[in-house]
Amino acid sequence: MLIVQKFGGTSVGDINRIKNVAKKVKAELDKKNKIIVVVSAMSGVTNQLVDYCNQVSPLTSNESLTEYDSIVATGEQVTCGLLALELQSIGYKARSFLGWQIPITTDEVPSKARIDEIDGAALLKSLEEFDVIVIAGFQGINLKSNRVATLGRGGSDTSAVAIAAAVKADLCDIYTDVNGVYTTDPRITDKARKLDKVTYEEMLEMAYSGSKVLQTRSVAMAMAHNVRVRVLSTFEETTETSGTILVNNNEEIMERRVITGISYSKNDVRITLVQMPDHPGLSAAIFGALAAKEVNVDMIVQNISADGKFIDITFTAAKEELERAKMALESIRDEVKYSEVRIDDNIAKISVIGVGMISHSGVAHTMFKTLADKGINLLLISTSEIKISVLIAKEYGELAVRVLHDAYGLEKK
Amino acid sequence: MLIVQKFGGTSVGDINRIKNVAKKVKAELDKKNKIIVVVSAMSGVTNQLVDYCNQVSPLTSNESLTEYDSIVATGEQVTCGLLALELQSIGYKARSFLGWQIPITTDEVPSKARIDEIDGAALLKSLEEFDVIVIAGFQGINLKSNRVATLGRGGSDTSAVAIAAAVKADLCDIYTDVNGVYTTDPRITDKARKLDKVTYEEMLEMAYSGSKVLQTRSVAMAMAHNVRVRVLSTFEETTETSGTILVNNNEEIMERRVITGISYSKNDVRITLVQMPDHPGLSAAIFGALAAKEVNVDMIVQNISADGKFIDITFTAAKEELERAKMALESIRDEVKYSEVRIDDNIAKISVIGVGMISHSGVAHTMFKTLADKGINLLLISTSEIKISVLIAKEYGELAVRVLHDAYGLEKK
Repeated sequence: MLIVQKFGGTSVGDINRIKNVAKKVKAELDKKNKIIVVVSAMSGVTNQLVDYCNQVSPLTSNESLTEYDSIVATGEQVTCGLLALELQSIGYKARSFLGWQIPITTDEVPSKARIDEIDGAALLKSLEEFDVIVIAGFQGINLKSNRVATLGRGGSDTSAVAIAAAVKADLCDIYTDVNGVYTTDPRITDKARKLDKVTYEEMLEMAYSGSKVLQTRSVAMAMAHNVRVRVLSTFEETTETSGTILVNNNEEIMERRVITGISYSKNDVRITLVQMPDHPGLSAAIFGALAAKEVNVDMIVQNISADGKFIDITFTAAKEELERAKMALESIRDEVKYSEVRIDDNIAKISVIGVGMISHSGVAHTMFKTLADKGINLLLISTSEIKISVLIAKEYGELAVRVLHDAYGLEKK
Repeated sequence: MLIVQKFGGTSVGDINRIKNVAKKVKAELDKKNKIIVVVSAMSGVTNQLVDYCNQVSPLTSNESLTEYDSIVATGEQVTCGLLALELQSIGYKARSFLGWQIPITTDEVPSKARIDEIDGAALLKSLEEFDVIVIAGFQGINLKSNRVATLGRGGSDTSAVAIAAAVKADLCDIYTDVNGVYTTDPRITDKARKLDKVTYEEMLEMAYSGSKVLQTRSVAMAMAHNVRVRVLSTFEETTETSGTILVNNNEEIMERRVITGISYSKNDVRITLVQMPDHPGLSAAIFGALAAKEVNVDMIVQNISADGKFIDITFTAAKEELERAKMALESIRDEVKYSEVRIDDNIAKISVIGVGMISHSGVAHTMFKTLADKGINLLLISTSEIKISVLIAKEYGELAVRVLHDAYGLEKK
């Protein structure tokens, strides 16, 4: 088999852990598998580098973000070299690759570049010369400027999946500090249960609604290229039943469950634009301005006054995008004529997710009734085919997760 | 003027110091100079990275040293990005360059590569687009393998001088934590005096015999390309009389002095091969084996027994090369038939240096008599046209420097 193994920051957090990672690689090499390894920076290192950048400059221009890219990409450069060294020292022909050496080419958006192309044939050729190759995650090269580009925080997951797609790997193992994907965060309820399999769509909704296990883009890419991804722990022995495997909808998961998991996020902020005169193009103006500042809007609700003349629009966004959102809203103040912008970060978003809900009615009813029974008020509701999200007061967040986990019987297999 | 400014590790040791460096750059930009900056890694960072490598692997193969190169080169990658960011934030159009981006091409010797070529025209073209460019020191690219190559510890000095030569800079300012080149180490005697000018040859001998101010290779390169180098402090205001300027022999230094400075090294080890049967090719065998292991031999003396049949050979080398020297000597044990290898690191090397000694006799006599008067025994002597070095017991090292500094009257201008 050809396997891409990706190791996150805690997995390579110090020299002993890097040696442990080499053992994980060796275990697969011993089974005559061909291995490509993708690594993150040592845990803490990227934060330190980002902090240096923030101490120097506000990082608002493309020029500054390009320097940021070159600076923060060094974290992965160090770990991929160290892991290659360790693999050499235990007897393998190993070498490291940086993004510009392969190359992994990207678009021209610094600090959150998207991968354009990876030369899979070149990587496969290298695998003829080397027992194992180790690739720096999170980074590529903008060929137009010949400069380092990074893929956004958590981007090493995306690197791994993109590489797996480029070389048509049989499996992409994402090693992390948890041993799989759970029905919900085990820190909130000890009834949380590890899932053996989860569909791409479910994982995507989970990632998007607060689960930190995989970067959202990596899941979307795995789905698009049908990459078989397994999430598992670096710190446990790997067996046939380790971890959680991402699979196609309707395939492989024999016994359909209605709800797969519950995600939980305290990282959102609710923004309300109050009392705007209604006119065609109002929403387009607002969400166009937000998009121009690269604010990712999540839930949206609009309320029209009784006489139909005024409109309130409420939406949520990630907390770290609040400043950009404010700038965007300020820029259209004269155009949309809101009387006030209300901001509330005292909120939690709870999402129940499952491809099974497509064919099962009553999922929403169960959710709303369960929360109502505990006196939890719903501030916003949004739904997709396989997800229902509600916004509630932050103080009820953990309670909501626990009662819903019980209500859907998620502790039972 | 076109000036290359190089800032060492203590000069860029933290964010505040990097901001201070930006002020130094701004001072020259304000005078309408064109500036290329070369930076080292933050002090301590390279040591940390080297330590990581050593914890993983013995670094004996070319493959391991190539990974080492890629790892340790990140230190400069971070600082050149941060300085470019800071220069942007104070209003300049600035960008960083890594070795592979220019490119600075090197030979194929990992961890102590030599620079083959720097595209000076490309750098000058960049200076039309940018107010200032910041280049990562210490690194280049081995084009044959497309991999990062480093120039050996202290290599950023060499980067700066090579870049200055490539762009034909008017001046190469090496900013460091001392304010110039001294007659001897000021920590040993408070009579040590800063030199306004020093010749390339003298600086070369000083660097070679223990002065840490500039990397030896950078001085040799400055001499070869006639680069005007000035050594000065980052932490003092720069004026017309700041620092020490490296100049051509017989030029510029009007009033000739006999002795320019005294260097001092405790970093050597003395190795003696005892009682070898003399035969033609003996020395060639020994020093050939040492050269093959890249041991740089410094002082050499051979003693022949009274009957002319046996020979002892004594030489010195840097302490960090001792293990390689032992391996080299072991490999020729059967060939040269020494009865014993004696190793002594309880030694200090004292060198008096000055181009003036070419035309002045009595320099050696003064040295030997001054040391003899203090009861200091000479273990080895070696000379060049402008230097006399002696090896003495380590405990007398500082005393020897002080009495020689007095004997040659170096405290007087």
